[in-house]
Amino acid sequence: MKAGLTIALDAMGGDVGPAVVIPGADIAAERHPSVRFLLVGDESKIAPVLARHPRLAKVSEIRHAEVAVAMDDKPSQALRRGRGKSSMWMAIDAVRNGDADAAVSAGNTGALMAMARFILRTLQGIERPAIAAVWPTVKGECVVLDMGATVGADARQLIEFAVMGEAMARSLFGLERPTVGLLNIGVEEVKGNEDVKEAGRLLRELSLPIQYSGFVEGDDISKGTVDVVVTEGFTGNVALKTAEGTAKQITAFLKMSLSSSLLSKIGAFLAQGAFRALRERLDPRKHNGGVFLGLNGIVVKSHGGTDALGFATAVDVAIEMVETGLVKKIAEDVAQVHAILAPAAKAAE
Amino acid sequence: MKAGLTIALDAMGGDVGPAVVIPGADIAAERHPSVRFLLVGDESKIAPVLARHPRLAKVSEIRHAEVAVAMDDKPSQALRRGRGKSSMWMAIDAVRNGDADAAVSAGNTGALMAMARFILRTLQGIERPAIAAVWPTVKGECVVLDMGATVGADARQLIEFAVMGEAMARSLFGLERPTVGLLNIGVEEVKGNEDVKEAGRLLRELSLPIQYSGFVEGDDISKGTVDVVVTEGFTGNVALKTAEGTAKQITAFLKMSLSSSLLSKIGAFLAQGAFRALRERLDPRKHNGGVFLGLNGIVVKSHGGTDALGFATAVDVAIEMVETGLVKKIAEDVAQVHAILAPAAKAAE
Repeated sequence: MKAGLTIALDAMGGDVGPAVVIPGADIAAERHPSVRFLLVGDESKIAPVLARHPRLAKVSEIRHAEVAVAMDDKPSQALRRGRGKSSMWMAIDAVRNGDADAAVSAGNTGALMAMARFILRTLQGIERPAIAAVWPTVKGECVVLDMGATVGADARQLIEFAVMGEAMARSLFGLERPTVGLLNIGVEEVKGNEDVKEAGRLLRELSLPIQYSGFVEGDDISKGTVDVVVTEGFTGNVALKTAEGTAKQITAFLKMSLSSSLLSKIGAFLAQGAFRALRERLDPRKHNGGVFLGLNGIVVKSHGGTDALGFATAVDVAIEMVETGLVKKIAEDVAQVHAILAPAAKAAE
Repeated sequence: MKAGLTIALDAMGGDVGPAVVIPGADIAAERHPSVRFLLVGDESKIAPVLARHPRLAKVSEIRHAEVAVAMDDKPSQALRRGRGKSSMWMAIDAVRNGDADAAVSAGNTGALMAMARFILRTLQGIERPAIAAVWPTVKGECVVLDMGATVGADARQLIEFAVMGEAMARSLFGLERPTVGLLNIGVEEVKGNEDVKEAGRLLRELSLPIQYSGFVEGDDISKGTVDVVVTEGFTGNVALKTAEGTAKQITAFLKMSLSSSLLSKIGAFLAQGAFRALRERLDPRKHNGGVFLGLNGIVVKSHGGTDALGFATAVDVAIEMVETGLVKKIAEDVAQVHAILAPAAKAAE
């Protein structure tokens, strides 16, 4: 089945399962004609939807799975119930055994990360995985990690995140030397908690192969001050959701203002092209796909409530990460960084 | 000098000092005719500006201070250089000795908090202070704390923050039973770090006099899901700045879109009333004023780069906190909560 790439899809993941995953894969199949798809899930539910998408059907294979992990299953529950036989497990397992080059799921994040870690294991030299998001900025886009895989990452883990995020930015944005910033509550060296300060010190003092730009603050993310923003999972997750909430709030305020008078309504009607452009720019479906970094394989998490277009974006991300050899890049970089970190730690003893 | 309230202003604080503080105080003087002001700072710089504001001059007194804390002074530096003789120190000290009922400064946050803690001390039963911000939501406003005073607050400190934020929401919004949420990366009990989980457990299980609504996520802040959002200082600071950055980003996107075609420009012209309403709604000057909670006195931090209108808002906040007896409310509530917490901790041993 090799030659082109194969992407395994958890067809049962997300709020509605095959009804979004299959049309989403169909859009991806149009964009990437040489890619093949492994559709994992309940065959009786996948087949009728697939029948309506002949283009996708030609490049797909269904792999039946008895169990579907529920969106509210706890990770431990999902592992117990879904081990070996759930669509989520089997999609990831296809990456492990070489049947697929990457897996995409819109299923529940905790369960997906737990299974991905269990099946694929972390890369040599990586203590903990991270979830990276692509964040729109006024200048373009940046990579932000971690979005919640590793709550309370320590200094060493933050440096591993920096290495992984930097490799992803090179892959995704085609940059030779992406700039990397550590998220903090001020740019002075004395600011922040011990882990952030220590990570900052190591990044400054050791000549790691990273273009380190120093501390950045919350508003630097959307300014595009750096290409990669590194933080531990709690803060990263809160920052992402706070930004999503603020975007919705301002859009709501804008709508209210524009419908407050007849003149405004006429103005809004004339400027509807501009509002469409704004909506497109802020469209969360264009920035869908949390990439799991630090594992022996690519797993991409799609938003559970997205539609076919959004799911297709997550598949795009997975394909791009495979094509640019992200896992190999990370493995090489981590080895290089640890060759510098280890003697430095010894010297400090 | 009593009878009415007296507010001490650090006239040298902020990016430009008296040129913003004095006109700002003048606006506040118009809004609150019975309030008196103690203008602390370099008399030779305050007097000429004050001469142009006769209304303020009538209700003000200048207290000369030799030193002005710089915006980039480290807290330790500010304490060393500014102890006893800086405008910031003397404004806070006026609260301690009863010459003023509250102090407002647009000076550097770290120095202001260090001096406020040193001079006013934390309230009995409060381990660490917090900085609370008033955050605009789609429903109205909520109180969010901590904005960076206490990085890495533990469970007990988070509960103290909940108590203080709840008292502030009662004062500021006139609510009898404000709802309180703990900021987390999911609403399930198993989510988050140990401190947040433990604080959540205590708030759920003990019958504290707080309307606890459970965990909330980043996007719940702007949704207005609860009246008070509690988190430790690192996350709170990042969330606030991320939201500010996102608001600026969307405004920039909106401007770009509206100027992209002639039709859009005409539409924007017709709808200018709506955009003015939106701008007003998002105006950061209307939400200026970080309240220092947990000290024996009220200190309000104004944004350093704000203008007179923004500074006047911070003064409004200080006056409201004094008038509603915030410090006394917090002291009473904390005593009540510790009366419940202490036996519970003992029973758990």
